[in-house]
Amino acid sequence: MTTGRDKEQRREGQAGAVVILSGGLDSATCLGIACAEGHHVTALSFDYGQRHHRELAAAARLAAHYGVAHHIYELPFFRQLGGSALTDDAISVPTEGVDKAHIPSTYVPGRNLIFLSIATALAEVTRSEWIYIGVNALDYSGYPDCRPEFMDAFANVATVATRAGVEGMHIEVKTPLLHLTKGEIVARGTALLVPYEMTTSCYVGEEEACGVCDSCRLRLAGFAEAGRVDPIRYQLRAKN
Amino acid sequence: MTTGRDKEQRREGQAGAVVILSGGLDSATCLGIACAEGHHVTALSFDYGQRHHRELAAAARLAAHYGVAHHIYELPFFRQLGGSALTDDAISVPTEGVDKAHIPSTYVPGRNLIFLSIATALAEVTRSEWIYIGVNALDYSGYPDCRPEFMDAFANVATVATRAGVEGMHIEVKTPLLHLTKGEIVARGTALLVPYEMTTSCYVGEEEACGVCDSCRLRLAGFAEAGRVDPIRYQLRAKN
Repeated sequence: MTTGRDKEQRREGQAGAVVILSGGLDSATCLGIACAEGHHVTALSFDYGQRHHRELAAAARLAAHYGVAHHIYELPFFRQLGGSALTDDAISVPTEGVDKAHIPSTYVPGRNLIFLSIATALAEVTRSEWIYIGVNALDYSGYPDCRPEFMDAFANVATVATRAGVEGMHIEVKTPLLHLTKGEIVARGTALLVPYEMTTSCYVGEEEACGVCDSCRLRLAGFAEAGRVDPIRYQLRAKN
Repeated sequence: MTTGRDKEQRREGQAGAVVILSGGLDSATCLGIACAEGHHVTALSFDYGQRHHRELAAAARLAAHYGVAHHIYELPFFRQLGGSALTDDAISVPTEGVDKAHIPSTYVPGRNLIFLSIATALAEVTRSEWIYIGVNALDYSGYPDCRPEFMDAFANVATVATRAGVEGMHIEVKTPLLHLTKGEIVARGTALLVPYEMTTSCYVGEEEACGVCDSCRLRLAGFAEAGRVDPIRYQLRAKN
């Protein structure tokens, strides 16, 4: 499925960028940064059977807001693969707060690696030089695929896996949020006028955010740290 | 979709391996090698809208022959992505012979990177230590993602992208065919009693192999080099 309006002609000399857009706070900020940096952006979202499927509608709203092309690719196999509270209804979403000593049950095996690989293919086809992904090492230290070690390991792969590597060009992965706190992300996005009211972060995926899952807790703490009020609606607002 | 019989209990100390199985000659040989090496194998195939969709039936036959678990994951986005004669009906499959100076139109952007990434996720979930992929640098020198440079770049990624990297374990990619000629692959598989009559390689994807597409030409040359007769049926047999 391809949604959103068609791209306008790329301006001469303007570099193409693929932005992985979940519809949450981090990826929305990434999209705002990529657009502010003057790239010709193609946004890419994934329907992987996630419990919080409504984030795809948020992604579409964000892409329309920025006037960029938007693709939603279906990855039905994630539900067959299982192993995560986000793709297996039998595993409940934790609401007791973040435990940094263990990998959370909301971790989806291989997700960022697979997302980056597909973004690489789209970058190749659209002749884009950049891939933006909103991974964040500090808040999500429990997710193996949000670690700087992983991003470093992947750094060279996109170029050598594709036509770019044969033709002497580069596809590079940009992670502008990697070392920011959630509060710094909110501050950065607020300065860029990112429309956070269009985003959704709650893992439970209901109309109003639950306010107590790990994702809601991190988001609320981020807005508090930045001295801002989160514009979306919550059922509860955990004090963290 | 999950097909094939269920895995028997893994024997103590037996390492798990995910084998990427297209149903063609190379991946069948890879499967034969992984089984001969004593691994507890999970075979993984992809339905990516390929023109030669019938290779999936060949993969299922091979998995059943070896008595290993077999998963077929659907990747419908490859047709949206386009850019290849194998996934876009508007681009015809070349039949004039292999031109090593250019990337062939049968190259599918990002394919091996995406396949390896998904195999990595399956290795994580099945606690497998090995991923086997039948890439071959000599015959397919025109495909960017069959180059040793790519395999080297990916080598460290599977481990650091996953739980394995956090828990001090490894997921490693094995490419036993990387530097073999097609003839050497046939000789190796023949010695291992790989049932080549179950495989299919033709890109056109009809009941009988066309005999003139790049894939048929390479396969026929491989059997000729090994001094063997290819057991599958052809409409024509190109002299290369």
